[in-house]
Parts: sequence; C-alpha cells; structure tokens
Amino acid sequence: MSGEDQELPVFTTAADMRNWVRKQKKSGRKVALVPTMGYLHDAHLSLVKAALEKADVVVASIYVNPTQFAAHEDFDVYPRNADEDRAKLKAVGAHAVFEPESLYVQVPGASEGANVVGRETHHPDSHETYVTVERLQKPLCGGSRPHFFRGVCTVVTKLFHICEPDVAVFGRKDYQQFRVISRMVRDLDFPIEVVGVPIGREADGLAMSSRNARLSPESREKALCLSRGLAWAEKAAAEGSVSDSAAVQAHVRGLIEEAGGKVDYVELLHAINLGPVTDLSSQPVLLALAVHFPAKDVGTVRLIDNTVLNPDKE
Amino acid sequence: MSGEDQELPVFTTAADMRNWVRKQKKSGRKVALVPTMGYLHDAHLSLVKAALEKADVVVASIYVNPTQFAAHEDFDVYPRNADEDRAKLKAVGAHAVFEPESLYVQVPGASEGANVVGRETHHPDSHETYVTVERLQKPLCGGSRPHFFRGVCTVVTKLFHICEPDVAVFGRKDYQQFRVISRMVRDLDFPIEVVGVPIGREADGLAMSSRNARLSPESREKALCLSRGLAWAEKAAAEGSVSDSAAVQAHVRGLIEEAGGKVDYVELLHAINLGPVTDLSSQPVLLALAVHFPAKDVGTVRLIDNTVLNPDKE
Repeated sequence: MSGEDQELPVFTTAADMRNWVRKQKKSGRKVALVPTMGYLHDAHLSLVKAALEKADVVVASIYVNPTQFAAHEDFDVYPRNADEDRAKLKAVGAHAVFEPESLYVQVPGASEGANVVGRETHHPDSHETYVTVERLQKPLCGGSRPHFFRGVCTVVTKLFHICEPDVAVFGRKDYQQFRVISRMVRDLDFPIEVVGVPIGREADGLAMSSRNARLSPESREKALCLSRGLAWAEKAAAEGSVSDSAAVQAHVRGLIEEAGGKVDYVELLHAINLGPVTDLSSQPVLLALAVHFPAKDVGTVRLIDNTVLNPDKE
Repeated sequence: MSGEDQELPVFTTAADMRNWVRKQKKSGRKVALVPTMGYLHDAHLSLVKAALEKADVVVASIYVNPTQFAAHEDFDVYPRNADEDRAKLKAVGAHAVFEPESLYVQVPGASEGANVVGRETHHPDSHETYVTVERLQKPLCGGSRPHFFRGVCTVVTKLFHICEPDVAVFGRKDYQQFRVISRMVRDLDFPIEVVGVPIGREADGLAMSSRNARLSPESREKALCLSRGLAWAEKAAAEGSVSDSAAVQAHVRGLIEEAGGKVDYVELLHAINLGPVTDLSSQPVLLALAVHFPAKDVGTVRLIDNTVLNPDKE
C-alpha cells in the first residue's frame, strides 16, 4: 500500500472518500482515521505513526472546521499549507488524505453569509444539526469557548460517517477533546475504537507545539516549569506523599509562578468525567495546565500541558 | 431468509445485533431498519412492508426510548407487548428484531434515579451526548415538547450506529419526525437512505391509528373531516383555485369545526424546512392537523393527519 514512488490518494468528496475506505475494508483491512486541521507538525505525525500501529491503512483528514470557531475567532486567518501537509503525510506513511473543500451543506442561491455556520445568519435550508456532550464540554477550555466542543463533536461525527474508520486517533495534549470524543463514541454507540496518543515531548521535557517557536530563549527555559511541575505531581501521587488535590494545585502553581509563568489555570479534575476531585489516592486525576510566557516578538505565548495522576486507576 | 417454520432472530445487545447485520452485508444483502417503540399496529407493519421493497433484509427495533419523554410524561406506563409484536413482525416478513433492554449506559453502583436519562438527576458518568436538529424541531409538536426531537434524534443515531442500515424507514404520519431525521442524516453525512412511507388510511379515508379505537361511533364519523379537509386542500392547490395559505387554513379550520372537532392546530409550513409560507403556487407545503374529538370513554382523542400540497415541487 505504501512506497516512495506511489501517489498518495487525495479525496475531496465524501462519496469518493467513503468508496475508497469501503474497498479497503472489503479487502479485510482495518482502517484508522487521524482528523486534523492541517498545518501539520511533528505531534500530528506522531498521531499518524500511532495510527499505523493500530490499523492496516491510515486516512488523515485536513479540514479547518468553521463550526468550532466563534464569530470573533481566527477561522479566516487559520494557517493553511496543504501541499506541505500532503508531503509530510506521505513521508510518514499515511495511505490517503481526505481534504474536502466544505463539509457543510451549501444552499444553492443563498448568500455566502447565510451558509457560514457558527455565525449569526442562517438560511432555513442550511446546516442545523449538532452533537453535544453536555457535561464534559463545560470545564477547562469549554468555559471561554462555549461552541467549541459542539463544533468539534459535530465535525468528528461527520468525518466518522464519511470515513467509517475502525480506529480514530487523537492526541492527549488536547486532553479534554480526547475525553469528549471518547464519551461521544460511547454514548452514541459509534463502532470505533478511540486511541489517545501520549504527549510528544522534546528531550528536555517541553511538550511539542508549533507555538514553542514563538518563545524567547529565556521563555523557552522558563517553560520547562510545566513538565517539571507535572513530574513532581506524578511522583508525589505515586509515592502517596500528597493526597489532597488543593495541595498539589498550590504547589504546582507556586513552581510555575516562581519560574516566571503567568498561570491561566492549574486544575485537578477526575480524569474520565472531568468532575471535581479532592482525594488523590483512589481515582485517576487529570492535572491540566495553561500558562502564558513572554513571546520573542510581541505579547505572550499560551502553552498547555497535562498528565494523569494514578493512571492505573482508570 | 424467511419462512413460517424459521425462528425470527431477536437480539438484545448492540454487539450481537451489529454482528448479524455485518454478516448480512458481507453476503451482499441490503439492510433496512424500521425503528419502533413496539405495541405494533397495521401502520407499523406497513413500514416493514415498505422496507421489504427497499432492501433484502429488514430489522425492526422495539425500544421505548426514555430520552424522548419528559419527566411528567407517560414513559413508565407506555404500553408494551413484545411477544405479540414479534409474532406480527414474523408474519409480515421481518428478518430480525432488535429488542435491547436499555440503550443508555448504566453506571455500576449508581442509584437507579441517577441513570434515568431525561430526568433531573444525573450521575457524572451517565449518558450525556445528544443530537439536536435546531430549527426543524421547533414548530408543531416541538413547541409543547422541547426535549422530544432531541431524544428521537439521539436514539435514532444510536440505532443507526448499532444496526448500520442502508435504508431507514419512517412513517409520514409523524411528518415532522420524518423531516427532522432526514435533515439529521443529511447534516451528519449518515450513509443511509431515509424513506418516508405515505399515511395508511382506512377505506373511508381516516388515517390509521391505534387511537381510532377510542373514538365513539359519532366521533368516528366526525373524524372524517380531517381527510376531507386535506383532500379539499390538495384539489384546490392542484387546480390553483387558492394561492394563499391563510385562506386554506381558514377554510380547513371551518370544515373541522363545523364537523364538531376541537382544533389543536391547522398549520401550513414549508414542507422541507417547516418555515413559514404564504404563497402556495411555487413550493411544497405541509398542511398538518391536530384535532380533538370526544372519546367513547372519558375525555377526548387527539388525532393527527397531514398532506403535502404541490408535492411535485419538492
């Protein structure tokens, strides 16, 4: 199925994509999907690599999904680089790319604005169906972006129906997204295994992100406080030396502030249902961080990182 | 696949049901699903017959879906008669029955109330994912039952994921439900053809319903005003003798009230998007009726009926 000299098939319509996947499955091949919004970096490619270990063929989708952006957000200027993305996907061993122009119905004759979903104006024949995971969408990033996970769940549902994968691969860096999708799959009986890939890290521990390139050399050094804070908490939880979530929160916040980071949040939540936790000894606990550091150009860079304490209690 | 002497397979788990369907599809058979809440009558069986014309094998599901009932509604006393349902399905030629005990996750150790969806109390690990068709759910029956179509869409999504049908069959008597499901399938890219079966009628025109048995002999006669009103409007629209929806509404309402029916609604809406209409000449228009008649025992019987004017303009 792969090889340097072979073309990487690129599908732009749902029908063509589904036909290709069904042919693969008819031949007994297990299919994995890696949904992306493009502009791929090493962390995305590690998802493709993980997918290759779980399935015989891997489809990567590239689609900047308008329904997960609010009207004031950066949908129009979200970076796109499809040619380079395809080359990277081919090099890492993906077997097909799904690259639709639009995934939402375009009403003939309606003005462009009427077809833009996630905005104010709607045509009565335009897209109107949404999938919502009601509780899991609320904490962490959901508070400031109320439509975000609704848009994610809706587009992932569409991609699942088009690509019909046996396995779908998401990164654990976007931990809440991974949990929201996992719960959606459970609740709606999708016949799909959801795989959460561990966070890719640089040699010194910094979680990989395209945003790291915007850090000044001093900030790059300071930012190690995130992975150090997580490692401290993992060790403390494993040893049983702290049992109270508030104590962990305060200590990690202190480490970050001491290093010069500006905390957006340091949160401890139940790792599966993202509900409140106090006791660290009997359940898996997510420790999630969002911290600003000075950028090398202007403003700050917001980095996120997380780990699960007591992962064996999942 | 059929025959008087063969057992009708009955599946109670999602895994068993899906395995059976996948085997059918692997053998090249086209699969149709007829979702029901059981207590089957002739109109349900006409859906199975329509399904048999569209596919090689027909699965009927029997499941009283708690998420489409509000807390004050009649979920607990909804009539159930599974043995008779199975006999009827076998007689009409269905090939399998899906009869799950519950389709919603039951959290181990949680109190019973915490697992009841559609009610107030939720456990943090209980079902929380819903599918909503935002605009189409609002008019007609949606106004008085705000959670109804959300529950219908959610359970139909689950049934689609479990039974993986090529075709799904719904009655046009529940016209809004048929349109809501059709739009959900379009918007979420389900690989499923939705078929809407025309309303089954008695020889004199009365739409079939299990509620007809509750009409007194006088009410049974009066209730013919519904189909007569629809027939009048169909003829008027076809001849072009009325072009204004308000005129049709007033005339049909008059016919019904003259016959002694108590109107809940007489509504004309765009037949596809259920938006407002005024002009009857250029678009398909739903004429939907809900009318109370005296019951033979106590209270009234609420009958519904509908037709599409200008169906060729769909």
